[in-house]
Amino acid sequence: MFPAPQTVRIPAEALARQIEAIFLAWGMEAEAARVTTERLIEADLRGIDSHGIAMLRYYEEFRQGGHLAFKPQIRVVRETAVTALMDAGGGLGHYPSTIATDLVIAKARAAGVAVVAVRNSNHNGAAGVYVQRMAEAGLVGMSGTNVHRPSIVPTFGAEPMFGTNPIAFAAPAKRNRPFVLDMATSTAAIGKFRLAQMHGHAVPEGWALDEAGRPLIDPARALMLRLLTPLGGMREQGGHKGYGLAAMIEILSAVLPGAMPAPLRNRPHGPSRTSPNAENRLDVGHFFAAVDPKAFREPGEFEADMDDLIDALRATKPADDSRPVLVAGDPEYAAMEDRRRNGIPVPAPLLDLLRDLAGTAKAPVTL
Amino acid sequence: MFPAPQTVRIPAEALARQIEAIFLAWGMEAEAARVTTERLIEADLRGIDSHGIAMLRYYEEFRQGGHLAFKPQIRVVRETAVTALMDAGGGLGHYPSTIATDLVIAKARAAGVAVVAVRNSNHNGAAGVYVQRMAEAGLVGMSGTNVHRPSIVPTFGAEPMFGTNPIAFAAPAKRNRPFVLDMATSTAAIGKFRLAQMHGHAVPEGWALDEAGRPLIDPARALMLRLLTPLGGMREQGGHKGYGLAAMIEILSAVLPGAMPAPLRNRPHGPSRTSPNAENRLDVGHFFAAVDPKAFREPGEFEADMDDLIDALRATKPADDSRPVLVAGDPEYAAMEDRRRNGIPVPAPLLDLLRDLAGTAKAPVTL
Repeated sequence: MFPAPQTVRIPAEALARQIEAIFLAWGMEAEAARVTTERLIEADLRGIDSHGIAMLRYYEEFRQGGHLAFKPQIRVVRETAVTALMDAGGGLGHYPSTIATDLVIAKARAAGVAVVAVRNSNHNGAAGVYVQRMAEAGLVGMSGTNVHRPSIVPTFGAEPMFGTNPIAFAAPAKRNRPFVLDMATSTAAIGKFRLAQMHGHAVPEGWALDEAGRPLIDPARALMLRLLTPLGGMREQGGHKGYGLAAMIEILSAVLPGAMPAPLRNRPHGPSRTSPNAENRLDVGHFFAAVDPKAFREPGEFEADMDDLIDALRATKPADDSRPVLVAGDPEYAAMEDRRRNGIPVPAPLLDLLRDLAGTAKAPVTL
Repeated sequence: MFPAPQTVRIPAEALARQIEAIFLAWGMEAEAARVTTERLIEADLRGIDSHGIAMLRYYEEFRQGGHLAFKPQIRVVRETAVTALMDAGGGLGHYPSTIATDLVIAKARAAGVAVVAVRNSNHNGAAGVYVQRMAEAGLVGMSGTNVHRPSIVPTFGAEPMFGTNPIAFAAPAKRNRPFVLDMATSTAAIGKFRLAQMHGHAVPEGWALDEAGRPLIDPARALMLRLLTPLGGMREQGGHKGYGLAAMIEILSAVLPGAMPAPLRNRPHGPSRTSPNAENRLDVGHFFAAVDPKAFREPGEFEADMDDLIDALRATKPADDSRPVLVAGDPEYAAMEDRRRNGIPVPAPLLDLLRDLAGTAKAPVTL
């Protein structure tokens, strides 16, 4: 058991300044650096620390490995009134995902529904920030991404085939803030294993497997082996459903745009894969869909019904009076309120890392 | 512990003849009776016995309760090139869902993507049959439905708020049959509790709760209380994700078309609910979406990548050599092969029920 690292609260703006400076020093264009920083800080503000600025450690690894383009050519490869295929040019995923989100919003507002898929991309942060943007534009939104590193083991399997393939979904209300679901299709996120390791706890049976497909409760070994169960855990608890959902996200995010499906990476594959630079780029894919409620309901009706639904869910009789029933997005909104007011909690090692990254990149160290 | 009931194998065609005769005797139009029967028999052929002809027991209850229109006015209420809102007129959901599926297929083929939502409907059988139809038309399909009777308990709750709200998803391949995921967003389907009860077994901890929100393993009490956990089970195992998915399906299937969300049934609600006949009709809603891969990839590329993906998943190193890794749809295709050849297994009590229903309805008894 280790003590939790010391944590300091830093205002979002100060963190953003440092992160943006690092991206600029890495050679990113000004607008891309600004938007990528915004998306990362949004994740931290929402309390999703695993998908915010802490990711810079891995982005630096990608950079060192030559897996990232810093002046990518982002372009729309195919387009109709209601669909678009984008090529992200091999850079980080946040900026092309923001462009894709704004494109799907514009198309769905004009036509009622739209889908934009992105290939040749990379990690795009927290999936929830893109659907939140759609809901704030008045649309029902869905988003997903595949992940280059496999960690989810299919039911009955003994090796990982999918990343933690998140699915995000949002819908606007009127009195209430949007419903925002943002979930990995694994039982537990990688960050929860790190937390258990830090505190010297075992993880619950059902989160991870050993090489023989048996439940594994040691978080350190689980992080090393990366044999996570799909949502539901073992077969008996519905793990085959989580496996199916992870596959669904892989199909929508990677197969649809022609990015690299995780189960096919480093394996012989046919000539149908069309993304350029597939040798060194991670060729991650994303999926964005939006539906305009006004294509189905009179203006305001959908949002009013969402309010009724959200209110009813919050009023569910609780099992324990001290722990009320929540609605997807509630914990993130609570974190956002706290962190906007009091700053984002940054563990000392992460602060050191950001300063180091800035120094190495010859960016101004502003923290 | 009770012995399993005696089962006879009956050819699909013979069952269909009897079911169709009952529907006609109930006053259904010829085409509606034919299509509704087809969808039910498809579910049985796929091995989804809980959503096939066994449902007639409940449809008879709905009929007795005046919850079903037998000559419903099915109409498109709003329509654009890529969206449609349908009103099912208060009848069974299979026929309007088939019309909605064919409409979403036609629109997605013409434009690249489409969404059709249905209100004022009722139970529509197995969600998988509609997305299978989309995949057979070359499209990526998604479907969902809400359920009038709540049985899923939100995380931290002690009362059910959502039905088992299924999500179905399908994608076409070339050499392989389509990927077809069809899953309730509860941990386990109602049918699994019935099976455990029949065999005198306890159900695994995590499937159901008692009134205090504690795990319940007695299947009989679980069926009586109807306090099922969302996929994932308890909070620690990710149950909040299943709860979020159930809510997502409720939003897409009920809020989007303006049907009755299960958490709002029998509660005061605002004037925004627009479906007619909401007093006695169950006002169930459905959601259908389709995407044409040809809007994103060259013809055949998507299907070739799907084949690579499916082959790779089947080749996953298994935990146990005698139990290979499956792909969503495999068990259903295996059941279909068996049942087309050898007939659909019908338990004796169900056979008696069908004969009784036919007799009561003054339909010819053909079984």
